[in-house]
Amino acid sequence: MFIYEAQKLLRENKATPSILLKESIEKIEEGQKLGAFITTNMDQAIELAAKQDEMLKSKQDGNLPPLFGIPLALKDNIYTENLRTTAGSLFWKDFVPTQDAQVVIKLKSSGALLVGKTNMHEIALGVTSNNPHYGPCLNPHDNSRVAGGSSGGSAIAVATGMALGALGTDTGGSIRIPASLCGVVGFKPSYGTVSTRGIIPLSWHLDHVGPIATCVEDVKIIFNIIAGYDSKDPFSVKIANKKSKSIEKNQIRIAKAVGNFIDEADPKILKVFDNAVKILRESNLSVEEENVEWLRELSISNRTITQVEAATFHKERLATHPDWFGEDVRERLLQGSNASGIDYATARYNQTVGKYRFKEFFKKYDVLLLPTVPVIAPPIVGRDAVEMAKVLTKFTAPFNLAGLPAITLSCGKVDGLPVGLQIVGRYMKDQELLSIAQMIETILR
Amino acid sequence: MFIYEAQKLLRENKATPSILLKESIEKIEEGQKLGAFITTNMDQAIELAAKQDEMLKSKQDGNLPPLFGIPLALKDNIYTENLRTTAGSLFWKDFVPTQDAQVVIKLKSSGALLVGKTNMHEIALGVTSNNPHYGPCLNPHDNSRVAGGSSGGSAIAVATGMALGALGTDTGGSIRIPASLCGVVGFKPSYGTVSTRGIIPLSWHLDHVGPIATCVEDVKIIFNIIAGYDSKDPFSVKIANKKSKSIEKNQIRIAKAVGNFIDEADPKILKVFDNAVKILRESNLSVEEENVEWLRELSISNRTITQVEAATFHKERLATHPDWFGEDVRERLLQGSNASGIDYATARYNQTVGKYRFKEFFKKYDVLLLPTVPVIAPPIVGRDAVEMAKVLTKFTAPFNLAGLPAITLSCGKVDGLPVGLQIVGRYMKDQELLSIAQMIETILR
Repeated sequence: MFIYEAQKLLRENKATPSILLKESIEKIEEGQKLGAFITTNMDQAIELAAKQDEMLKSKQDGNLPPLFGIPLALKDNIYTENLRTTAGSLFWKDFVPTQDAQVVIKLKSSGALLVGKTNMHEIALGVTSNNPHYGPCLNPHDNSRVAGGSSGGSAIAVATGMALGALGTDTGGSIRIPASLCGVVGFKPSYGTVSTRGIIPLSWHLDHVGPIATCVEDVKIIFNIIAGYDSKDPFSVKIANKKSKSIEKNQIRIAKAVGNFIDEADPKILKVFDNAVKILRESNLSVEEENVEWLRELSISNRTITQVEAATFHKERLATHPDWFGEDVRERLLQGSNASGIDYATARYNQTVGKYRFKEFFKKYDVLLLPTVPVIAPPIVGRDAVEMAKVLTKFTAPFNLAGLPAITLSCGKVDGLPVGLQIVGRYMKDQELLSIAQMIETILR
Repeated sequence: MFIYEAQKLLRENKATPSILLKESIEKIEEGQKLGAFITTNMDQAIELAAKQDEMLKSKQDGNLPPLFGIPLALKDNIYTENLRTTAGSLFWKDFVPTQDAQVVIKLKSSGALLVGKTNMHEIALGVTSNNPHYGPCLNPHDNSRVAGGSSGGSAIAVATGMALGALGTDTGGSIRIPASLCGVVGFKPSYGTVSTRGIIPLSWHLDHVGPIATCVEDVKIIFNIIAGYDSKDPFSVKIANKKSKSIEKNQIRIAKAVGNFIDEADPKILKVFDNAVKILRESNLSVEEENVEWLRELSISNRTITQVEAATFHKERLATHPDWFGEDVRERLLQGSNASGIDYATARYNQTVGKYRFKEFFKKYDVLLLPTVPVIAPPIVGRDAVEMAKVLTKFTAPFNLAGLPAITLSCGKVDGLPVGLQIVGRYMKDQELLSIAQMIETILR
């Protein structure tokens, strides 16, 4: 069920929060083996839903907070008051925050029913969500394959109806990759638009928070609640609140990413991607081809900054208890520790120049299209997680480095596994991107 | 002579460009031993002045370009077409650019007479301007002492009337330190307001260009010409052009920096600083004391980023010809090369958090006052340039890291040597800072 449908049912008294929650709980129980949750929040959610049922009875005007009665899930690196928050790590295995992250405060005050904390790649540094401490995340479309990561549990929860929406975090693709591999919609907003205060960091200058849901409208609903400048978050960005001009379909300038960098993807993925673009063209959208070879370096620079900043944040932990980290995460933290200042400075230089290059790019185009992930969901067993991170983040990481809004939506299947179409927009033009994504979603459906 | 006076004389036909230039040339010849210039531009300047004399004769409406006939000097890391640009380094000793830096284009089209390229600390990485390849810069107030740096020659040129104004660059204090030690006014604008395109970089994310002159009005005149977004410079910053509110004297909220960090300065400097603040208070300006211990870390982080980015930019040169660098510069480049990614990431984290801290600070205050340099101009001989850089940039470097506009003006003397008062303003509120600085200058004169 879509969030916007559930909102309507609640407002028309055709559903109650408890009924919606019951469905979620059933799905959670059915799908237990998928490993979507590290900690569930059933008792509190049931209690709140019951209260909301009463409120609904006494309130006949349909004027409810936007997420009233909507079951949502939260990635387990997001602080929740009185509810364990592990970041998928042994270091936080018994950590119970005394306060909510800023985004959780916003979701709670919008009436959301928080069903639990989702499984993830350990400390968010990886994309398989094959967590050595809390168990693997299984792809709902093929349980022998990864769900993607690092927000794997959030994507599973949404794909299977365990929650109608979820929050993930995204430092190199961690919202978009699992959303793509699980066949749902994932949105990484512009850097700084959603507060990261109260979220266990991976890489300060690349971390983003955003929604996963089953349609663009739903991610938009969640985004509109969690977005906004946070004066207490040094990484929050305040921008002049320029109105987005509404976009006419025949005026949208779309770039299709082409060139060697793209062609290295699985040909089956490219076929689905090409077909989606073909459908858009047949629907009279203007799509031009643009060689994006220059994204390659940005992808690498994003990895450098991620690993170095992660090594900086986890320095003490890595020094005192290296064995508490899983093998792949430890290896990447050590790579970050061993990187030189020159490596980081070079990556930052590329970041600044990359942002500039995108600024020029977006003078010519409104959005860039490319596959979200260059391969289908890989098998859980027998793959090197460090190598997987390089492959799976290849098409998503450049947009973390540049801080651009990027969304993935399903555009077909390969061997029964979902393929994501990634749509990238202008910095701080999140609403514009969401409008275009909605248009594209409608055409592709 | 002040620039604004020269402008008036020219417009009233009481001076000609050639007369102004002749005075400059005389001063340059008189002060040759001070080592202010690496390359002079006499022939071209004389030729242009003669042309301008003719223009002036035929033009009776007084409507002249703003810097028409004004002798200015340029630091030798700023590209000048057909005029050698060395960056004070052997690597560029025969380098003649084929085009002008963006700021030079602007100065030339404003009619400035460019008298030459000023001596500087080698590659701008240091503050003594004791250049091993092009000779030392001598302080005009005591020739046995340093002029400060890295824009040492620019400050000497202005202090002695070799030019009415000059451009310098400032990555950790390189405009403000020599301006302070030579007793003139130096202004480092907000990061990104003046294009650095065509300037040999020291540290991309900390480099600033700005004017040196003998009064605030004059730096303002030059700043207004060189400022502005450069769409071809990835490091240029475009901001919403909010109007600065005009500031009433009795509404200005001034913070005086106090605490251990400040108290480590030479007590004689502090006495002059305290006295300047006393005069401001007696003039009914509101000055509150604020402990700025937190600037210490920002100063160190600025040095880390400077050295690492410099080592990144000069990597090939350091690898192939380490002996072409002077000893102190080589040592600092090696420190930058040896810094870890974690060192840089930590400094960048401090940068982001520091910017945030200033944002909070400037909710309470309009400007921050502190001494520009904690000591008087040190002797040229017998001091360690690497150590000098740490000491002399201590009070200036935090504002490069945070990108804030900062200006120094003379507020007294110690042992016959000038002491600078530094005034720091809000990010991108350069005009507001300049207005306040002008008010303070008037009171202290």
